[in-house]
Amino acid sequence: MSQRRQITGFSNPAVKFLRSLREKKHRKAAGKFLAEGLRLLTDARECGRLPEMLVMARGRDDHPLLAALEADVLAAGGEVIETEEEILAKITGKDNPQAVAGVFAEFDTSLAALDRSRAKIWLVAQALRDPGNLGTMLRTGDAVGAGGLILIDDCADPFSVEAVRASMGAVFTQAVAQARWDDFHDWLRQGEGQLVAASLRDAVPYRGAPYAAPCFLMVGNESRGLPEDYELACDLRVTMPMKGRADSLNAAVAGAVLAYEVLACLGD
Amino acid sequence: MSQRRQITGFSNPAVKFLRSLREKKHRKAAGKFLAEGLRLLTDARECGRLPEMLVMARGRDDHPLLAALEADVLAAGGEVIETEEEILAKITGKDNPQAVAGVFAEFDTSLAALDRSRAKIWLVAQALRDPGNLGTMLRTGDAVGAGGLILIDDCADPFSVEAVRASMGAVFTQAVAQARWDDFHDWLRQGEGQLVAASLRDAVPYRGAPYAAPCFLMVGNESRGLPEDYELACDLRVTMPMKGRADSLNAAVAGAVLAYEVLACLGD
Repeated sequence: MSQRRQITGFSNPAVKFLRSLREKKHRKAAGKFLAEGLRLLTDARECGRLPEMLVMARGRDDHPLLAALEADVLAAGGEVIETEEEILAKITGKDNPQAVAGVFAEFDTSLAALDRSRAKIWLVAQALRDPGNLGTMLRTGDAVGAGGLILIDDCADPFSVEAVRASMGAVFTQAVAQARWDDFHDWLRQGEGQLVAASLRDAVPYRGAPYAAPCFLMVGNESRGLPEDYELACDLRVTMPMKGRADSLNAAVAGAVLAYEVLACLGD
Repeated sequence: MSQRRQITGFSNPAVKFLRSLREKKHRKAAGKFLAEGLRLLTDARECGRLPEMLVMARGRDDHPLLAALEADVLAAGGEVIETEEEILAKITGKDNPQAVAGVFAEFDTSLAALDRSRAKIWLVAQALRDPGNLGTMLRTGDAVGAGGLILIDDCADPFSVEAVRASMGAVFTQAVAQARWDDFHDWLRQGEGQLVAASLRDAVPYRGAPYAAPCFLMVGNESRGLPEDYELACDLRVTMPMKGRADSLNAAVAGAVLAYEVLACLGD
């Protein structure tokens, strides 16, 4: 049953529910997440992902893509809500809210849902804590034609507003999986796959290294890097020039420099 | 005259001054900025940059590098302040404060202070709004041995707590300049220098493009990219593969992928 309704007031239950999705525990309890902005929602729609609920600001500018989105959501049995701009701002936590937000069901993030033969490059992040870095890795994965991002151990939530925003829509195009290290390692070794880490330990230069598809590129936690035993479990350890005082790059940057090198080496 | 003192209470004038440095207008008025953490302050010290004021948490662990820093600050006529951990947390705006913070005089950020012959790579950012991206570009610049980062038009403040933090100390190793586009362009053309932009306009593949030192690598604003006339003023426009739905990378990521390519092409 599809519906369209107006809501007003910060204490409206729907507003409370939507605002609660900015917190991880409420997202997990509901199995839903928020994405904001017409561009992102249009990307989602074109990837076959429709929000269950669409929230639009009253007084927004008309836009054919927004009208198409609204029609599709209603046709699919979803709900469309109109509300005040300042309420939408409270929901998304943004001072300058975009005129629309959507509520999506969280995806299946099990390893079993991944088809490793689907892409030559897969990104893997271990204990990545910054949602901006996580979203940026999704965005980079989209750009290099990766299959998806596998999150090992305790990472930031890929469905947080910040990660979804930083992904620029790639959360809808890239597969996302979440697993403990042992489970990931078991899964990886049940099929083809080269595990590669940026490392200083017994590593070869990253440029022109013997990458092989499907190549699983792993980066570690922002402050601690990868645990030693994870590095030692890799098939290939590569090192990037570090010509200054620092001994590491931002995690999302390191992943991107490696991913573009692998793309150049493995070809299209 | 050097001094060492204890302060308590959130209303202490020194605490008020230190907290005020989290806001740009107060940083500009005072010509000072904050950096936090022993590692960052040690990097600064080893680069010959001492804080004018050092603020330490009472009850911190002893550390030889902290003792060395304190001695150097006092010897240089600076001030050392001890305070409560919760006051230090208020100053840095971090829940889990690092045990030490320093107040530095802002550097000269004029183009005239740059020596372009000092490095083969320079990074240039136009209207970069995110302080995390800005700090990440400084960190990448350090890693590729760049000379520094030139900020064009209205960028985030390189001396904000967030940018300094994301730079991981590179704000002390990389030169930073701020300029309007016209002034930068005039300065650039008064000497050697190849201006390169990531672009979709009449661009060649970024891989193995004819880069020349000193190479000035320019990235644009996070949402709008570079203005068309800035792109057209470049000596070389390069394009990176974009194999997914998105038509752009995160600005700091694009700069890093390009910078590592230029490093590989121009050699050490």
